[in-house]
Amino acid sequence: MSENKKHTNTVNIAILGASGYTGIEAIRLLANNKNYNIVDVTADSNAGMSVSEIYPHLSGINLPDFKKIEDTNFSKIDAVISCLPHGKTQNILSSLPSDIKICDLSADFRFNDIELYEKVYEKHHEATDLQQEAVYGLTEINRDKIRKSRFIANPGCYPTSALLPLLPLIKGNFVKKGTIVVDSKSGVSGAGRTLKNNLLYGEVSDGFSAYGLISHRHRPEIQSQISAHSSSIYKILFTPHLLPIKRGILSTIYFCINDNSNIESVIKCLKDIYAEEKFVKYSETLPSTNDVRGTNLCKMKAFFDETTNQVVIISVIDNLIKGAAGQAIQNLNLMLGFNETDGLTNFPMFP
Amino acid sequence: MSENKKHTNTVNIAILGASGYTGIEAIRLLANNKNYNIVDVTADSNAGMSVSEIYPHLSGINLPDFKKIEDTNFSKIDAVISCLPHGKTQNILSSLPSDIKICDLSADFRFNDIELYEKVYEKHHEATDLQQEAVYGLTEINRDKIRKSRFIANPGCYPTSALLPLLPLIKGNFVKKGTIVVDSKSGVSGAGRTLKNNLLYGEVSDGFSAYGLISHRHRPEIQSQISAHSSSIYKILFTPHLLPIKRGILSTIYFCINDNSNIESVIKCLKDIYAEEKFVKYSETLPSTNDVRGTNLCKMKAFFDETTNQVVIISVIDNLIKGAAGQAIQNLNLMLGFNETDGLTNFPMFP
Amino acid sequence: MSENKKHTNTVNIAILGASGYTGIEAIRLLANNKNYNIVDVTADSNAGMSVSEIYPHLSGINLPDFKKIEDTNFSKIDAVISCLPHGKTQNILSSLPSDIKICDLSADFRFNDIELYEKVYEKHHEATDLQQEAVYGLTEINRDKIRKSRFIANPGCYPTSALLPLLPLIKGNFVKKGTIVVDSKSGVSGAGRTLKNNLLYGEVSDGFSAYGLISHRHRPEIQSQISAHSSSIYKILFTPHLLPIKRGILSTIYFCINDNSNIESVIKCLKDIYAEEKFVKYSETLPSTNDVRGTNLCKMKAFFDETTNQVVIISVIDNLIKGAAGQAIQNLNLMLGFNETDGLTNFPMFP
Amino acid sequence: MSENKKHTNTVNIAILGASGYTGIEAIRLLANNKNYNIVDVTADSNAGMSVSEIYPHLSGINLPDFKKIEDTNFSKIDAVISCLPHGKTQNILSSLPSDIKICDLSADFRFNDIELYEKVYEKHHEATDLQQEAVYGLTEINRDKIRKSRFIANPGCYPTSALLPLLPLIKGNFVKKGTIVVDSKSGVSGAGRTLKNNLLYGEVSDGFSAYGLISHRHRPEIQSQISAHSSSIYKILFTPHLLPIKRGILSTIYFCINDNSNIESVIKCLKDIYAEEKFVKYSETLPSTNDVRGTNLCKMKAFFDETTNQVVIISVIDNLIKGAAGQAIQNLNLMLGFNETDGLTNFPMFP
Repeated sequence: MSENKKHTNTVNIAILGASGYTGIEAIRLLANNKNYNIVDVTADSNAGMSVSEIYPHLSGINLPDFKKIEDTNFSKIDAVISCLPHGKTQNILSSLPSDIKICDLSADFRFNDIELYEKVYEKHHEATDLQQEAVYGLTEINRDKIRKSRFIANPGCYPTSALLPLLPLIKGNFVKKGTIVVDSKSGVSGAGRTLKNNLLYGEVSDGFSAYGLISHRHRPEIQSQISAHSSSIYKILFTPHLLPIKRGILSTIYFCINDNSNIESVIKCLKDIYAEEKFVKYSETLPSTNDVRGTNLCKMKAFFDETTNQVVIISVIDNLIKGAAGQAIQNLNLMLGFNETDGLTNFPMFP
Repeated sequence: MSENKKHTNTVNIAILGASGYTGIEAIRLLANNKNYNIVDVTADSNAGMSVSEIYPHLSGINLPDFKKIEDTNFSKIDAVISCLPHGKTQNILSSLPSDIKICDLSADFRFNDIELYEKVYEKHHEATDLQQEAVYGLTEINRDKIRKSRFIANPGCYPTSALLPLLPLIKGNFVKKGTIVVDSKSGVSGAGRTLKNNLLYGEVSDGFSAYGLISHRHRPEIQSQISAHSSSIYKILFTPHLLPIKRGILSTIYFCINDNSNIESVIKCLKDIYAEEKFVKYSETLPSTNDVRGTNLCKMKAFFDETTNQVVIISVIDNLIKGAAGQAIQNLNLMLGFNETDGLTNFPMFP
Repeated sequence: MSENKKHTNTVNIAILGASGYTGIEAIRLLANNKNYNIVDVTADSNAGMSVSEIYPHLSGINLPDFKKIEDTNFSKIDAVISCLPHGKTQNILSSLPSDIKICDLSADFRFNDIELYEKVYEKHHEATDLQQEAVYGLTEINRDKIRKSRFIANPGCYPTSALLPLLPLIKGNFVKKGTIVVDSKSGVSGAGRTLKNNLLYGEVSDGFSAYGLISHRHRPEIQSQISAHSSSIYKILFTPHLLPIKRGILSTIYFCINDNSNIESVIKCLKDIYAEEKFVKYSETLPSTNDVRGTNLCKMKAFFDETTNQVVIISVIDNLIKGAAGQAIQNLNLMLGFNETDGLTNFPMFP
Repeated sequence: MSENKKHTNTVNIAILGASGYTGIEAIRLLANNKNYNIVDVTADSNAGMSVSEIYPHLSGINLPDFKKIEDTNFSKIDAVISCLPHGKTQNILSSLPSDIKICDLSADFRFNDIELYEKVYEKHHEATDLQQEAVYGLTEINRDKIRKSRFIANPGCYPTSALLPLLPLIKGNFVKKGTIVVDSKSGVSGAGRTLKNNLLYGEVSDGFSAYGLISHRHRPEIQSQISAHSSSIYKILFTPHLLPIKRGILSTIYFCINDNSNIESVIKCLKDIYAEEKFVKYSETLPSTNDVRGTNLCKMKAFFDETTNQVVIISVIDNLIKGAAGQAIQNLNLMLGFNETDGLTNFPMFP
């Protein structure tokens, strides 16, 4: 299997760390996608169990049982989606056969600057060679590189919601240098299926709080992508909040408009750059997480305040799809020569 | 277009009363279904508006604008899904060209006994001829009749959840004569997009209540279907409750087992009769509304209590899909010669 | 301190196992109650921490830090509320000084029939002497005994919701012998602050399921109380369900009315017996969990179905208050000679 | 009854527009407050009905029936809480006897600048004399004026959450001139009991959106209060969002710190100024709406980001209490010589 060839047959895919929310979302999305044949699903702690024992909503799909990674025969695998947790993927993914296309959903390969990675994630980078190969998988921005790549570092959910509106505007010189405030709100599935008191129904329901102020790890991820497309004169201030919803991120983004610019050209920039995109849309109505839930869509809309010269952008995604498993499949579709939108074209369910 | 021919081409479909929750669910399901071409969507109060103005989650789909029924040219329509409210459909549907296949989601044609209808719905039946033609669209039970029919009275949501487990057991003589208790719990979408205080978020959220005790209109609907398959020795006692969830019905059903029967044969009956069904399943795990949300599935499981000789059945559906728009499309698929499952085969989304 | 004396001074109270939901609810209710002085709060796993570190909503209250039970000096304690888990209380509570008034919220002393307890809870009863002394603390039913008692086994939450309507009707001979169906729905706080996947927000929210069918341990508790007030000719069939709400139980209760009785006399019985009660009410409107949330109230309403001769009763409580900490304080108020309603008279908050 | 006298007796109070969420919250809070005797509750559309017919959670309280304002005899009334909608209060309140203490919860008297009011609310101000008398009822900031006043314009809910942290910092010169971003999130009760599609459970639940960007009327209210305490060199940028919770506001506030200042002094300022306050607290933990729900509390916490020199403040209130009815009663307590905290000292309920 050489890169960039069109796949006319089904691709054998393995999902690593498949028993978390992102993993089962990848399973769900791939199960209805004729391009892919799910050959292996790994989950060390649940090895030996069937998928439907743990997730009854997936009963009725013909799936392999969970197994350990070490019991997986990668010689018959064409592609991998890795949902392993941060810090565990570098050794595993660098040991896989080099002809396997990989999309990694952890943060382990999202930083070209290895020092920055080691500072932010407080651990030694153990696969610097593979890091060289890694392409940041923000599809609409890096499509050409992704198409030619073998290894994708899939973006974080918050960064996806912030960068899709911000990067075109920064590249187009619409944003005045200085601070960009990203005030983000996420549903609980962003925290994974983690047994913590603060994720219990009784504690999340009917309440709202911020967390990770100043220090959240998605801030340097956003910052480093912004800096990669400018001369680093922008500083990101990022505040995440936990919403009592199951899935969805809404980011409210504030920045000063450049002196020679105006809101009409800001809007035109976003409309033009995403005019032909299937998944990223400038919205005519005020975007709600309802408009993207269950889909690979990102919707955004820009507003302008004359008295402060600030632009406010509302951007929404489904954190488990465009923010994780969906964008991963979109990237694999590109890497494998399938239609980019295959298996990702459903509409949101409402109510 | 004559009945029972296989359709090899796309069918032109109109959705009447399309701006409610059931109507837009029909639109959403049909929009991804290559068998159907949505030609008209009517909504008298919203005539002239685009679908996405009212439901932004449906933006991006190429759809006609809402129009009035009277402005609809039915000569080019092959099939109709009617989501008009109870009491409004009889005159309208009986005036449509007689070669149009119709699936009506109101209660107006669900009672063969016209007197009973008039008593329960407190209005004069205005289309008794069409009533003769109507087939009760509980697909798995009446499939053969449905396939040959032109006009379907689609079942109510609660009756669908109760009858799918009960009818095979009653026909198989597993249920002792006497009272059958159906204790049902439904998400709010079952009440439609209705502006009432008791449907506001502030009133529904974090609370729970019963309603319509003794007198709910789905009770005589369940009763009349039960009676149609037995000698009327069963009496249904039905209590609906309003759940703080968006979609989903769970019915807990209680009845005494017949003296010569046992729980193993009850379970075998359900497993056998639904063994080949794609949408109705005997569940290995305790069914949750999570297991069917967003799908056309009904899942059920039976339990037995020795001390009281009672069987308890848990049955779950998505009220807007198997309980409304999904079963309607399943029926139309049959009536029009398509594969019964076309456009209805997605899996639940979780979380 | 001798029994049955009126307390004119403040009572020193200790709450054992105070870091769960029931424990902090007891703290919250007692913190505003001038009769009680919270002297000790024990929580073995959180010993050494302040209450507000774990529950910030209780910051601002002057409270002792959590300590281990073994570090508690019971010689200065007048009363104990025990929120320890089932199976742990028998040894601990039987070792306390015999002049301490105790209300135990576990199930460990709810069964007079020790064999039944050992069968249901699958463990050896280790404090059969103390069991002799235990009074089942369903206040409105057993008030006189409670007033004279030293040791209370506080009822389970589901049994409280079922027994308050059922016991007067059974004693009054309104219920035909046979099966009584109790179909109950509870908010998640009933399961405590337990780290289980099925209690995570992502899994509970927007879904609904039954659990513990046939075998739930509150069934024999209800049954044994019913049997204690009749000649055991009633058989309880009990199905609990998990509601996506934080607190509240609604029980829907079905039984056949006795031949010589009628619904008017059923209603009169409930109205009369609870006419002077402050916490238990026959409701004019259909009771919702909203009507009792945050209060020590139980509200109920009865309906009759002529065709099946069945009575349907809707009964609601707040599981953490009337179903746990509130009824415990109501009982202690009685045992200590305070006004029964002291500290429990607030109204529900809505929305 | 002359101003500033201590009330030793019960005050007769009328609540105008009492059938909305704010009105019934005032009823609930006053019903447990021995200082006040609820003499009249007006609600034009519900005149003649009992309170508990519309709000069953308030059954059991001895309350007058709803009546029309025109049927109210104000000669026996000492105090009024007006919950009438914006634009309706000016004529009514200016016609009341001048010895009645009034707290108005509408926006009609919140702007000293009448031109600004008329521009923002797009209507003629019809009680400019009464406006002269009006004191902005942000209690902790304007306590002395409130104590001496007869007529209070109670602050908006969002402004309360933003101004309590901001005003002391602006007065203390900690905030660099320029833009202050207030990114606020509110529960649905802030929108009142309004029959709109976007407030239905099916539309709010499990979703999240912004609204009123740039133009929300609470922005000029915040701005005018900020300007009143500075030389108007600050510009407020305000974005409200609708949370799927019933009550609670969390505001995330961003501003640049002054060059000669630092975060320690910002925190010290807030801690010191609110050190003796019963309702406004600098929080040791990250404030959640859970920490204030059901109370008159405002909790806040400040963070600092070195790279952007920005302070981020999280501030939480219960929009119906500190943001409406609770602060109104706090103000009346002051105006009438009662203890400021009377009837407002309960703790939050959790979960």
